[in-house]
Amino acid sequence: MSKLFIVGAGPGDLSLLPPQARHAIAASTDLVAYGLYLDLLGELCNGKTHHTRRLGEEIERARLALNLAAEGRTTALISSGDAGIYAMATLVYELLDRQLQGQEDHPEWLDVDISVIPGITAMQAGAAAMGAALAHDFCAISLSDLLTPWETIETRIDAAARADFVVAFYNPVSQKRRWQLPRAREILLQHRPADTPVVLGRNLSRDDETITVTTLAELNAEHVDMLTAVLVGSSHTRCLSTPQQQWVYTPRGYNKKLVSEV
Amino acid sequence: MSKLFIVGAGPGDLSLLPPQARHAIAASTDLVAYGLYLDLLGELCNGKTHHTRRLGEEIERARLALNLAAEGRTTALISSGDAGIYAMATLVYELLDRQLQGQEDHPEWLDVDISVIPGITAMQAGAAAMGAALAHDFCAISLSDLLTPWETIETRIDAAARADFVVAFYNPVSQKRRWQLPRAREILLQHRPADTPVVLGRNLSRDDETITVTTLAELNAEHVDMLTAVLVGSSHTRCLSTPQQQWVYTPRGYNKKLVSEV
Repeated sequence: MSKLFIVGAGPGDLSLLPPQARHAIAASTDLVAYGLYLDLLGELCNGKTHHTRRLGEEIERARLALNLAAEGRTTALISSGDAGIYAMATLVYELLDRQLQGQEDHPEWLDVDISVIPGITAMQAGAAAMGAALAHDFCAISLSDLLTPWETIETRIDAAARADFVVAFYNPVSQKRRWQLPRAREILLQHRPADTPVVLGRNLSRDDETITVTTLAELNAEHVDMLTAVLVGSSHTRCLSTPQQQWVYTPRGYNKKLVSEV
Repeated sequence: MSKLFIVGAGPGDLSLLPPQARHAIAASTDLVAYGLYLDLLGELCNGKTHHTRRLGEEIERARLALNLAAEGRTTALISSGDAGIYAMATLVYELLDRQLQGQEDHPEWLDVDISVIPGITAMQAGAAAMGAALAHDFCAISLSDLLTPWETIETRIDAAARADFVVAFYNPVSQKRRWQLPRAREILLQHRPADTPVVLGRNLSRDDETITVTTLAELNAEHVDMLTAVLVGSSHTRCLSTPQQQWVYTPRGYNKKLVSEV
């Protein structure tokens, strides 16, 4: 049986990689990934055939992984974060869908046994590092308009702003895309306070991790890059400073219950 | 130094528990949790002092965990899923916030060193088991109106429906709350097709896991309980049947790119 694992490598720190992901990599002979992710996984990847492709070559990676698995090579297609959240898993299904619709000529792909292994995604690592920003209703929005029309994205930002969701922005900026995050900030500011807490987590869980807390009013796209997770609080999200640390959390409303019990 | 770990135990299968969570439990002398979660963790919990409290006693658990840690006992407060997503972490911060505002008389809590350890949450396990339903913009909404007014929840469902987010419902039903999920379905049906795929995952990753795929029109609250993750697709989410399995995925739009390249 030909086998393809689609693995989320998490934010970077191997202590956040579940055993299921580790076992899938160990069971594979071939690894397909953007090179940085294999570097982060380190010696887990030793003794495997590496197939690295650049950023932007996502379709090539998905296609190669299906081809290798269909040839009978047990293959792991590796993303950072959760493989199912803005990552590689969906590309494999887009290709299978095309095959089923007669747009590809790879019937052998349909016999590949696929397992998707979830992982810790950036918003989770960012929230945990600073407390519990995602503890009440939240949404994830990608600011990349390469494949999604900007009007659709803006509709989602506006809906999230009006309905007071905590918002995690993925792909907040790139070298070419700089105006989307400032525009998103502008929309959010129409519906929530200027002092709404914002968490910026860069290289979360890695050696060069930097986490800063700012406010929606002060959110500056110059301080954000491709590797930064951006979490914008709801109108209820609060900052706390204890002697130990500054924290950001979104209450679920237990305090109302506590007050009524006093 | 007094130490409190707030740990997400994931959906149940230990192969999805990151090493960081395992190490935190190993380092603790005292475990505070709803009893079922300690059962799922099995022998990891051996040799520790167990402090189990029933469902509904969440505030008592958070308070007890802070007290134990403040006494110098290294303590793990354990939730299922991700401790920061609709779970225990935020209660600890609500209590610290009350202390800082003079509503509690536990200054010793402020000296506790806290680490929140993220985990795989139900929507991730459900999406991965069936493919990649969360691969594009999504939101998480709790249908519990015990602490959040129903009007707020309904505003969020409506916003998610209009802006075409994939929606993960948490706390979809309980023994006492049965009408919220049918009402949510009704709102979603105003904005997306009757055949929108819905994934119902019960006891995900556990021995008695059951996963079914249905449609928004056929979504029946009688098939859903407290332990069920409910994922409702966006208008773009698709079902695929390969000889291997039925899959549910949300495309990111790479197919447009593929078509333009052909």
